[in-house]
Amino acid sequence: MNAPLSERLPNVVALGGGHGLAASLQALRRVTSNLTAVVTVADDGGSSGRLREQFDILPPGDLRMALAALCGDDHEGRLWADVLQSRFGGAGPLSGHAIGNLLIAGIWERLGDAVSGLDMVARLLEVQGRVLPMASVPLDIEADVLGADPEHPDVLSLVHGQARVAVCPGEVMEVRLVPTDPPACPESVEAIRQADHIVLGPGSWFTSVLVHLLVPELAEAITTTSARRILTMNLVPADETAGFSPSHHLEVLAEHAPTLRLDTIVCDPTYADGDPDLPRHAAALGAELVIAPLRASDGSPRHDVNRLASVYSDLIGR
Amino acid sequence: MNAPLSERLPNVVALGGGHGLAASLQALRRVTSNLTAVVTVADDGGSSGRLREQFDILPPGDLRMALAALCGDDHEGRLWADVLQSRFGGAGPLSGHAIGNLLIAGIWERLGDAVSGLDMVARLLEVQGRVLPMASVPLDIEADVLGADPEHPDVLSLVHGQARVAVCPGEVMEVRLVPTDPPACPESVEAIRQADHIVLGPGSWFTSVLVHLLVPELAEAITTTSARRILTMNLVPADETAGFSPSHHLEVLAEHAPTLRLDTIVCDPTYADGDPDLPRHAAALGAELVIAPLRASDGSPRHDVNRLASVYSDLIGR
Repeated sequence: MNAPLSERLPNVVALGGGHGLAASLQALRRVTSNLTAVVTVADDGGSSGRLREQFDILPPGDLRMALAALCGDDHEGRLWADVLQSRFGGAGPLSGHAIGNLLIAGIWERLGDAVSGLDMVARLLEVQGRVLPMASVPLDIEADVLGADPEHPDVLSLVHGQARVAVCPGEVMEVRLVPTDPPACPESVEAIRQADHIVLGPGSWFTSVLVHLLVPELAEAITTTSARRILTMNLVPADETAGFSPSHHLEVLAEHAPTLRLDTIVCDPTYADGDPDLPRHAAALGAELVIAPLRASDGSPRHDVNRLASVYSDLIGR
Repeated sequence: MNAPLSERLPNVVALGGGHGLAASLQALRRVTSNLTAVVTVADDGGSSGRLREQFDILPPGDLRMALAALCGDDHEGRLWADVLQSRFGGAGPLSGHAIGNLLIAGIWERLGDAVSGLDMVARLLEVQGRVLPMASVPLDIEADVLGADPEHPDVLSLVHGQARVAVCPGEVMEVRLVPTDPPACPESVEAIRQADHIVLGPGSWFTSVLVHLLVPELAEAITTTSARRILTMNLVPADETAGFSPSHHLEVLAEHAPTLRLDTIVCDPTYADGDPDLPRHAAALGAELVIAPLRASDGSPRHDVNRLASVYSDLIGR
């Protein structure tokens, strides 16, 4: 007798936020539908920032983007993904709000429970997989930044808020969460514990990738789960990590999560090839280094979903 | 060979707005799923008023209420109806907006077509039937009101806007649309032409019931369709028609739509019994008068959905 389909599909958890997580989910959904996104909830900018301030709710934006990435893959699903992501225009009080953010916020207002509300949107939109917040409360990020003021490049400053940290000039030395010991979303912890594979990255290194390891219960689950841990590197050093080599990305990851061990690190050759120290840093984290083409064929610094899916398919298999 | 189910079900169009139309739809859905709501788009108050002003769109509120009335009849459907209808709290810029209004407005912003957007929401929510606007452009209502200023009961005033007309003291003498010759929604005209039965009322007499007869193409379709025309009376004279007898309601209807003929007029005995002129006024419109209990058993002045459904089932049958 065959096992039920869901038991045969690998159980995968992808952690992150923003466009990096969306790319990861779009690739992973081609490998398995037994897929959970664990999403950062520290955004304080734009539509999400306004909504969390007004209603004291989790910032919905990264969650919305993950839901859109997992919408049905037919015409209707793509149209809904597009609607969720589209924003009100004009200059009035709704201007700039993503429609999906308002829908999620409205359902939360009505239901009073973040996970039930996300599950409800997911059912409505026939989302493949589940989208969960990493924490049960809205979080803030603060960072020690060297040279945040370009006129004083040697001065360490404290920068508050994900939106500011993400675009701050200077070098981010350390990020912390406020509060420092937030309650993890219990369903997210459980998903990580039950996973066959967990995938970190790509994404804004400090504010979307590292940040999951700063929620204590989540870090504990990530470091102790029996799941295989895959880290997918960015293609170029982005705003938060301007000038960083791949090795430097791994160094800051290890500094923020000293007990983290990885099984696989995936990096595009155009970024890996200039970094002779990368194999050593990967080995220090316990990881096999996989160099594989991940970059869009138009040369732009974004991950190609098919290439990511191909790598994940090899790593995760069926 | 059997005909497809949809061909055997009576094709019914319900016209109206607000709570009256919602009651009508909740009753009619028990009789047929081949059901179309043709909804007023003249609201200029509250959440709808703010949205139409900000985005130059149809006011979504009455459409949302009709969609909610036709949501699936299981737990999930009722939950979605509830979410569509619920409003943001607080005192910020989203305060008071119904979540369904924002969803509809957002989809319209994205799609640029009112009917496609409503059909998309209807598919999403597994709505039984179709919800259409009566006109393709947002409308305004103006009214001649006698004694709008209670200190001058004999003075006729011009009152602008549905929200003001609906609660204006004094006696509404005539309502007009601005613009006076708006384009009807073509799908609504076609639905009325194809219907087996059309149902007018109950609802705010001037602003939700009469108003459909002021859109010229819609009035033409209503008066010339081969469908049987049913009018369901209110249970009591409401704000707009304070002090009106049932007969007086029919008089103002006939004044606003001189060529209208009806097949059936349904009225609750508690309102009909005090009006000896009602049979004559019904006959003048060509209608059979059906006196049947419609009122909620708790005595409140709202239509009981089961009683309405029972009457419609007798009139429309299978």
